[in-house]
Amino acid sequence: MSQNIEEIVKKCHQSSRVISQLDNAEKNQILNTIADLLEENIEEIEEKNKIDMENAEENDLSEAMKDRLLLNQERIEKMAKAVREIAELDDPVGDITDYRQRPSGIKVARMSIPLGVIAMIYESRPNVTSDAAALCLKAGNAVVLRGGSEAFHSNTAIADVITEALEQNDVPGEIVTLIPTTDREAVNELLSMNQYVDLLIPRGGEGLIRFVDENSHIPVLKHYKGVCHEFVDKEADFDKAMRMLIDGKVSRTGVCNALETLLVQEDVAEDFLSLVQENEHLQDVKIHGCERTQEIMSDIDSATEEDYYAEYLAKEIAIKVVDDFDEAVDHITKYGSGHTDVIATEKIDRGNEFLKRVNSAVAMVNASSRFSDGGEFGLGAEIGISTTKLHAYGPMGVEALTTQKFVVLGEGTTRHDIV
Amino acid sequence: MSQNIEEIVKKCHQSSRVISQLDNAEKNQILNTIADLLEENIEEIEEKNKIDMENAEENDLSEAMKDRLLLNQERIEKMAKAVREIAELDDPVGDITDYRQRPSGIKVARMSIPLGVIAMIYESRPNVTSDAAALCLKAGNAVVLRGGSEAFHSNTAIADVITEALEQNDVPGEIVTLIPTTDREAVNELLSMNQYVDLLIPRGGEGLIRFVDENSHIPVLKHYKGVCHEFVDKEADFDKAMRMLIDGKVSRTGVCNALETLLVQEDVAEDFLSLVQENEHLQDVKIHGCERTQEIMSDIDSATEEDYYAEYLAKEIAIKVVDDFDEAVDHITKYGSGHTDVIATEKIDRGNEFLKRVNSAVAMVNASSRFSDGGEFGLGAEIGISTTKLHAYGPMGVEALTTQKFVVLGEGTTRHDIV
Repeated sequence: MSQNIEEIVKKCHQSSRVISQLDNAEKNQILNTIADLLEENIEEIEEKNKIDMENAEENDLSEAMKDRLLLNQERIEKMAKAVREIAELDDPVGDITDYRQRPSGIKVARMSIPLGVIAMIYESRPNVTSDAAALCLKAGNAVVLRGGSEAFHSNTAIADVITEALEQNDVPGEIVTLIPTTDREAVNELLSMNQYVDLLIPRGGEGLIRFVDENSHIPVLKHYKGVCHEFVDKEADFDKAMRMLIDGKVSRTGVCNALETLLVQEDVAEDFLSLVQENEHLQDVKIHGCERTQEIMSDIDSATEEDYYAEYLAKEIAIKVVDDFDEAVDHITKYGSGHTDVIATEKIDRGNEFLKRVNSAVAMVNASSRFSDGGEFGLGAEIGISTTKLHAYGPMGVEALTTQKFVVLGEGTTRHDIV
Repeated sequence: MSQNIEEIVKKCHQSSRVISQLDNAEKNQILNTIADLLEENIEEIEEKNKIDMENAEENDLSEAMKDRLLLNQERIEKMAKAVREIAELDDPVGDITDYRQRPSGIKVARMSIPLGVIAMIYESRPNVTSDAAALCLKAGNAVVLRGGSEAFHSNTAIADVITEALEQNDVPGEIVTLIPTTDREAVNELLSMNQYVDLLIPRGGEGLIRFVDENSHIPVLKHYKGVCHEFVDKEADFDKAMRMLIDGKVSRTGVCNALETLLVQEDVAEDFLSLVQENEHLQDVKIHGCERTQEIMSDIDSATEEDYYAEYLAKEIAIKVVDDFDEAVDHITKYGSGHTDVIATEKIDRGNEFLKRVNSAVAMVNASSRFSDGGEFGLGAEIGISTTKLHAYGPMGVEALTTQKFVVLGEGTTRHDIV
């Protein structure tokens, strides 16, 4: 087996040179073929998905997991649509920036280029197979895919379609390589292939991400968790603050950009928290409040240290009354996860101070944390949200799958005089 | 000891918030104080350096190593000058780019911010202590320094000056922390402090870099080696190609941007290599040639597979005759180190093709590889040259010590309608 996985990943690596040299039209042609073939093969994909669904039934997977696993005509059509949308993005490769003419006579610029080979390790949702492949291809990268074992047959069916699309366009099918086994040992082998893989992107729970990070020396783009805060400043507009709170906490709870903690400045705590208590949208939200919150709101739990670190992903929130702006920033720095944090304030200076001092991936003034998303930010489809600072920080579009080299033009220019 | 190192690095981490919030004038004030105090303390630093020099004598260090270790008035003044030059660079923090107004009503932009805490692990040259500290400070970062044990007393003297300069400016001295021991175990502990260190930068031999990379899960900026190529295309201008070869190979040999391999297209091999044979600047360069090279040049060694991978760092070069452009690019891709590669050609299309296809950190047309340097590229002082693609690729200035967060402005804007 060992030999096999290494051979497979090595072939993917070799094929990366082909995809890295294609122009935008050629890459889009491949993407559109993938979309067409996904639609043409709906029945076959559904059939393979049935095997996974039957196994899920046998293995007693939760209804939520089964829902994530299920593929039907509508969902496969949506996958095809997503691939076509990725084709329509600007080419992230070949951009020239930072042009400078230097006193020595050379001309220097930066040119964006693909990273090389990206390995995606992900759980359950089979649509990640086509989404991730399409994003990597658009950025000129080859990709190794390792999906969850529960989705193995579905992922294989989708990967087969992608291979066919690549081959129809006369490029090696290995450019998109699905690891053809559910053997866990294969993951460990993949993590050790520094020489063939340039970047690892784990998508799934915190456990998966930590496992990947701790067991590999390949760079990892990490998205740990979203413990997002809204701070209601003493000069907040209550109406705006309340709408942001409702949107952030209850419009969708299972997502990383949902709010998990509300901080309220002492001066307005009584007034604002009374409104929270009464608001119809928030009636079924379970509240963990600090002592001062408990003095204002009735029928709530007391907040523990763990509550402030918690990513509830549910109709549940921690609330803390803070003395001032500094305490709010300190709280966010200590308990936050570097994802997205928001201030509600009508004071422009305080808003700017918040943007400056909160070094989360996304800092917002008077906007809902739920906007923290590649699509909403105009980056196009999103490959993930990085909560660590190296290479990319925050929502990552295809651009995050490229790097920049320097290009230099001279006229036989030398650094020292040659006589 | 274990407790100690963790405490020390933790304090540095805590102090990073202070430096991250200073404006450019405040940071420059600190840098200029460092420069002043370096000059005021020349004698004290020289005295401490004497201890290292005596130890070097006792331990039989090579003359080259002793030369790197030595500090005198001129060298200390040069260190002060370098710090002042770093102060004069543009502030890399707080830059706003990529501003977009989105259909939802939010305004999105990116803002450059410090990385946090950077750990530098380096060998011999004590000037790295002030250079690295100044670059990290300029980018708003705290820094942990771990120099070579042979330079321990010199580094301590310089770090003491920096601490004093920080404290004179009312910020914590811990912002620049020198690990106060030569104990090797301290390095291992430092490498394990993911929670306090955002980036590792090893500076030194390949062994040090691999050690750091293999023993830490903190992101590492890696500079492995410079196996730089010059390819003389069949439509090269021989005069330019020759000047670039001389500058690249003999102007300075012990540097990573020196040439290590010459590739010559078959069509012009006989003519160009005859000129190489005769050139007075190249008489004492040891040549390892391929079979075809050996047919043209006399008195040369034959090139082995290892020669093509070699970073000689000496008056030594591998020469290979290639059939065509494709073979040259393939050779560079296979044997190169992703540092800097150069084509000599008068055909603009072929030059552009080279820039496009060679994905080394630096690709050049008709310019000497010796230009591959942060200062020459206009980046200001250089913290290193990355030969891996994540985060930074190629010469790195202060900008590489920052990242970008997203900042968002709304007017109580929500992603979903709240009624």
